[in-house]
Amino acid sequence: MTSQLEALRRELDRINEEILKWLNRRAEVVQEIGRLKLKQGINRFDPVREREMLDHLVRINTGPFDDQTIRALFKQIFAASLKLQQKQHEDALLV
Amino acid sequence: MTSQLEALRRELDRINEEILKWLNRRAEVVQEIGRLKLKQGINRFDPVREREMLDHLVRINTGPFDDQTIRALFKQIFAASLKLQQKQHEDALLV
Repeated sequence: MTSQLEALRRELDRINEEILKWLNRRAEVVQEIGRLKLKQGINRFDPVREREMLDHLVRINTGPFDDQTIRALFKQIFAASLKLQQKQHEDALLV
Repeated sequence: MTSQLEALRRELDRINEEILKWLNRRAEVVQEIGRLKLKQGINRFDPVREREMLDHLVRINTGPFDDQTIRALFKQIFAASLKLQQKQHEDALLV
């Protein structure tokens, strides 16, 4: 393998680690929001808020990923976060 | 809405923007790798490398997302990146 390719792969590894870090940080904040909403008796899932977040991300998206791909990836991230929040809610009810 | 909830939502927006930034940075590096491999006549898709990246990410994952979710999300990110690289390859062949 060329050293140029190796350098790019090392950069990719570093970027993967950044994405992992931010995904888990996002999950932590979603859990905090879940706890707060539970305490305040607010309905947890807010589809309007989710659409607003997607619209904002697409608005500031500069590529190379196209808007459709950004929407699709973030929908997966949102769904995974919501699942985590729901599990947390179930666990709270079981206590 | 409480100010505490508002603060958490602002934090979530900031994290979304970080994830967006790193996803697109990742796409750029994948495109650079694609160009380099094309020039060097190397086969583009490397399933071993993809498995190694996933294994590494799961090894350093500290949660709250579980390993299965991290694998699933990154598989989507890898697939989107590969699609972009393939499109770039097709475009190069059409020139």
